[in-house]
Amino acid sequence: MFNVVVIGATGYVGAEIVRLLQYHPEISISCAVSRSFAGKPYSNIYPNLKKIFDMPLSTVDMDLLCEKADFFITALPHDVSKDIIPKLINEGKRVIDHSALFRFRKRQTYEQWYGTAHGMEDLLENSVYGLPEFYRDNISQAKLVANPGCYPTCAILGIAPLLANKLVYTTNIIIDAASGISGAGRKSDLAYSFCETHENFKAYGITNHRHTPEIEQELSLLTGEDIMISFTPHLLPIKRGILTTSYLNLKDNNLTSDKLYEVYSEYYKNEFFVRVLEPGVFPEIKNVTGSNFIDIGVTVDKRLNRAVIVSAVDNLGKGAAGQAIQCLNLMLGIDEKTGLTQPALYL
Amino acid sequence: MFNVVVIGATGYVGAEIVRLLQYHPEISISCAVSRSFAGKPYSNIYPNLKKIFDMPLSTVDMDLLCEKADFFITALPHDVSKDIIPKLINEGKRVIDHSALFRFRKRQTYEQWYGTAHGMEDLLENSVYGLPEFYRDNISQAKLVANPGCYPTCAILGIAPLLANKLVYTTNIIIDAASGISGAGRKSDLAYSFCETHENFKAYGITNHRHTPEIEQELSLLTGEDIMISFTPHLLPIKRGILTTSYLNLKDNNLTSDKLYEVYSEYYKNEFFVRVLEPGVFPEIKNVTGSNFIDIGVTVDKRLNRAVIVSAVDNLGKGAAGQAIQCLNLMLGIDEKTGLTQPALYL
Amino acid sequence: MFNVVVIGATGYVGAEIVRLLQYHPEISISCAVSRSFAGKPYSNIYPNLKKIFDMPLSTVDMDLLCEKADFFITALPHDVSKDIIPKLINEGKRVIDHSALFRFRKRQTYEQWYGTAHGMEDLLENSVYGLPEFYRDNISQAKLVANPGCYPTCAILGIAPLLANKLVYTTNIIIDAASGISGAGRKSDLAYSFCETHENFKAYGITNHRHTPEIEQELSLLTGEDIMISFTPHLLPIKRGILTTSYLNLKDNNLTSDKLYEVYSEYYKNEFFVRVLEPGVFPEIKNVTGSNFIDIGVTVDKRLNRAVIVSAVDNLGKGAAGQAIQCLNLMLGIDEKTGLTQPALYL
Amino acid sequence: MFNVVVIGATGYVGAEIVRLLQYHPEISISCAVSRSFAGKPYSNIYPNLKKIFDMPLSTVDMDLLCEKADFFITALPHDVSKDIIPKLINEGKRVIDHSALFRFRKRQTYEQWYGTAHGMEDLLENSVYGLPEFYRDNISQAKLVANPGCYPTCAILGIAPLLANKLVYTTNIIIDAASGISGAGRKSDLAYSFCETHENFKAYGITNHRHTPEIEQELSLLTGEDIMISFTPHLLPIKRGILTTSYLNLKDNNLTSDKLYEVYSEYYKNEFFVRVLEPGVFPEIKNVTGSNFIDIGVTVDKRLNRAVIVSAVDNLGKGAAGQAIQCLNLMLGIDEKTGLTQPALYL
Repeated sequence: MFNVVVIGATGYVGAEIVRLLQYHPEISISCAVSRSFAGKPYSNIYPNLKKIFDMPLSTVDMDLLCEKADFFITALPHDVSKDIIPKLINEGKRVIDHSALFRFRKRQTYEQWYGTAHGMEDLLENSVYGLPEFYRDNISQAKLVANPGCYPTCAILGIAPLLANKLVYTTNIIIDAASGISGAGRKSDLAYSFCETHENFKAYGITNHRHTPEIEQELSLLTGEDIMISFTPHLLPIKRGILTTSYLNLKDNNLTSDKLYEVYSEYYKNEFFVRVLEPGVFPEIKNVTGSNFIDIGVTVDKRLNRAVIVSAVDNLGKGAAGQAIQCLNLMLGIDEKTGLTQPALYL
Repeated sequence: MFNVVVIGATGYVGAEIVRLLQYHPEISISCAVSRSFAGKPYSNIYPNLKKIFDMPLSTVDMDLLCEKADFFITALPHDVSKDIIPKLINEGKRVIDHSALFRFRKRQTYEQWYGTAHGMEDLLENSVYGLPEFYRDNISQAKLVANPGCYPTCAILGIAPLLANKLVYTTNIIIDAASGISGAGRKSDLAYSFCETHENFKAYGITNHRHTPEIEQELSLLTGEDIMISFTPHLLPIKRGILTTSYLNLKDNNLTSDKLYEVYSEYYKNEFFVRVLEPGVFPEIKNVTGSNFIDIGVTVDKRLNRAVIVSAVDNLGKGAAGQAIQCLNLMLGIDEKTGLTQPALYL
Repeated sequence: MFNVVVIGATGYVGAEIVRLLQYHPEISISCAVSRSFAGKPYSNIYPNLKKIFDMPLSTVDMDLLCEKADFFITALPHDVSKDIIPKLINEGKRVIDHSALFRFRKRQTYEQWYGTAHGMEDLLENSVYGLPEFYRDNISQAKLVANPGCYPTCAILGIAPLLANKLVYTTNIIIDAASGISGAGRKSDLAYSFCETHENFKAYGITNHRHTPEIEQELSLLTGEDIMISFTPHLLPIKRGILTTSYLNLKDNNLTSDKLYEVYSEYYKNEFFVRVLEPGVFPEIKNVTGSNFIDIGVTVDKRLNRAVIVSAVDNLGKGAAGQAIQCLNLMLGIDEKTGLTQPALYL
Repeated sequence: MFNVVVIGATGYVGAEIVRLLQYHPEISISCAVSRSFAGKPYSNIYPNLKKIFDMPLSTVDMDLLCEKADFFITALPHDVSKDIIPKLINEGKRVIDHSALFRFRKRQTYEQWYGTAHGMEDLLENSVYGLPEFYRDNISQAKLVANPGCYPTCAILGIAPLLANKLVYTTNIIIDAASGISGAGRKSDLAYSFCETHENFKAYGITNHRHTPEIEQELSLLTGEDIMISFTPHLLPIKRGILTTSYLNLKDNNLTSDKLYEVYSEYYKNEFFVRVLEPGVFPEIKNVTGSNFIDIGVTVDKRLNRAVIVSAVDNLGKGAAGQAIQCLNLMLGIDEKTGLTQPALYL
């Protein structure tokens, strides 16, 4: 049994980590940490876990925490991660972090899009972007894993096969996306109140959402070209789930939806959590909600010789907590799927 | 590994049985049966199960099915159950049925509320009402278990301790209830379409809902009195979950909420799936959704010397599929909790 | 054209008053007041009103405001109403207030349920409870109208005919109710965030909700008896609307649903905004949303000789803003229905 | 007072026409026609209109109907429109039709996308596309108006100023869109049931949605070029509303969001129902729901020199019933805004 400490355990990502780890046969939470609720049983905050996980929440006492485990998952605001991660790494701990701090290859990208100095270049250099489908080997050896953003996970995996196989032009890539409201985290904010969001839909972060450079970085690394994309997120009146619809211009005008399906199937043939859907079938958020799967549907628009790709993940699952546990499994040297095979609820 | 056949596997209850059994370490579905979708992979109908449960659906060929398992779960319309159950029992199979056919001690109750002749008195006599908290021993020996209705499960367990302990009068019992829409089953019906139900709420089946006699039967058996209740269900714009709010007049005017909490805790002290909430804490549907738990909150209204009891279940979980598996575990002689300890999603 | 000033114009009740007054041919808003947003165009806060009502919001400058109109509607927190109302009355203004301050005949009731001293007994004595169906004449003459709570409007009108006609016993009255989330007002509160409320349902304020004494007061005045009720509100995952289901024991056991329908139709024969539904038809929230109607459905449970009454209003409509305008019409001496006849949206 | 007959009055578009006409001071519905519900009071089907519009529904007796009015609005399935429209036109009636039959300039476009022969070329030649912002004068004289589709209305008005002013290239136009479920009409269809759509989101009609050629036709006519677009609709778990996000490549790389705002403001300066939002402000569906407005937000992505345009309408309002009444006002020679100035509900 491996021990793990979860810091930031009462946010929505933290809560999903705690929930998912209840299914894990080889990982035990030795400490769940929350500044706001320290001392209270976890199930007071999340009563769904009553009789399942009643452990009292711990304060942020780094010395004590370091005695509790060799593996840490942090799901914290950026400025808090900034204080905590270096200490953990110094103590020789292996960490999966959910902030954006360690996701970028270039410090400058972070500084430009987040508007603040980075100041931890050496950590950055040694961190690994936690997308197992891309960096499985590095993750398994990593000291510090930067868990990808939810939108990037969905968008990158959705179109990677097209770019890796050089089937498309690298300009005019449009990624239109929509997310459930849990993506905004657990907070008291009028903008995310029921009455302001129900029976509503809107775009936000148009042309400047911070997940843009993350997507661009990975697509650029994949192709060796400097890729820029249009990325527009929208806010859905649902709790969980992300769906992205991407448009890319095909080079070869003999490609068909059937052929694309083959390309995708081949590219992901060893990836359990990537489900490529048959031509004519498309992802729906309800099919991934609560699971670690990403569903991808592919089409060629013959009129325009353009690929239209739809992909869906649970923003808290494959888009955050599930992916973190997938990475943790790799770091522990156990089967990547362990504790992660539960299906979506559908209803 | 025990084999089970699920007949009616593509309705919402059937789908939940299939989903829940993915977590079960000792039960294997040897056949999933659906008249409408026979031949198709299960995951074509429920794509959330792609890569998890892709078995093709079977037709209703009784001889073939009988070779496939000793245990059957049926989630069918009443008139279809009527044809199938006798054959299964004749073949020596042990069955958990979700229709109302075998829930009543008296044929007449069924005939009066369902407006049709029963005609299977001997089966009725040997059936057991599948509420483990009441009939655990009988269920473990039963040939035929009548899985309780969703509302009755929530209502009966919610107020049983008051009646069993003779703390309340048996008149003026009011049970006000609300259910998610999956309770109506999977069907094309304008009344359950999104546009007709979203941002809406209504009562239905006022004074004549068919779960009324089921609740009355069990409360009467518990007390030895002839109990009649007011039961009003309402339709919630949610997918899953039932919440009942019950009002009962207390005999003794020294009872407090704290004392009631003690009574309930004692009554359910050995029941894993019943969670009695501390005084001042009340059930919410999100805390039970996807799980097999029932949450119960208790209060005494001192001004009126009346108990107000709130209880919540997932209508597809403890209210149907979860309970069926709990019964099946008992019939198999294995730990009742096996495969059923997953928490609700909360989000 | 009459001028009115709306103070607290950017809360949800205030916003509904502003929206509804766009339909009013004889009332003009001369000032919309908001502490938080003073100076900004109203349609910056509520962009649905762009090109319809762009007036800049005013600060709370009482002298200035008093020059702007003879009629005031206040939709404020109790403690703010406390400061403002006496000044307005002193200046000879006629006021419709939405706080609970002036709803009770007895200061003690307010103090007991709200836990704070009242201190404005003379205002209280001269205030009128703003339920036109009960107090039409008094309202038309009133200096200060206390607009009723949303639940009380729905509950009181729903069962008044039974009590006024002495058809029921005055004990064992149960009122089970559910409200949309806008009833909690416009605020940043985790409890009312989308993720905490969607696909959820719960009871709250069990045995101690502050609308209880308001309902009891009006039922007691109606009957001359001291009536106490069980009242349990629930929180619906919808934006607007209230539905109450009430249970009352009938005295005469010859009453039928048809007869009750006649009693109700007679009682409300002159009330345009009360729609008594034919036997067998029941209210749904979607039929009143956005309107000033209350829909009432009546049934007799012959088995128990108990009346089950379901009523529905829009908590922001007949339960708040619509009713306020209905009162204002009376105070202005114009047709009570003016500007209030728009139907619910249904969709 | 002008009389109008509404045929297909109980579908969602028909119901919205009936609802909106309650606000119209100069139009009276002389007949509401419904095959399914003939003889029943309209408010039996839509109880929100009880006491507002209780007129019994009429059968489809063409002779009788033709005596009832000179103006007709038809909201029918295509194959039913096909039978009825020619008769009405023959009788000299003026008609606004909601089917796609008369929307295309070229018969071939209809036949190609709808897969069936047209067979009414002469009617087609004399029909007018009912977009007042484009064809105001023609509409006012028209015998037969083809009311535009909901998506086309939102998409075309959203990007017309860019194309009309030749600011963008006419290739690589991407229009990503999402609609509420009422767009599918009032029907019993599992795909639109609550449980299958709530907490879900999906794309549909990818590369082949029938509104594509309608958008292409109007953009082509506007520019004199043969424009082809990528159009992907998605299904939102809301009742009403459409939002489109469009991407177009700018020719001139000195354009800014501020400048675009000016261009749009100028283009729509005389259009009451088009609200161009200030730079940095974007449409939300809740701001148009229930109204006849279209809200448009504009941005330039300087990194990519691409315009990102977001527009929103109520699919039943400006996207159908509202627009039909706007056209009808033009045909009647009265102020286009008459009866259409009610704001969205926001909540």
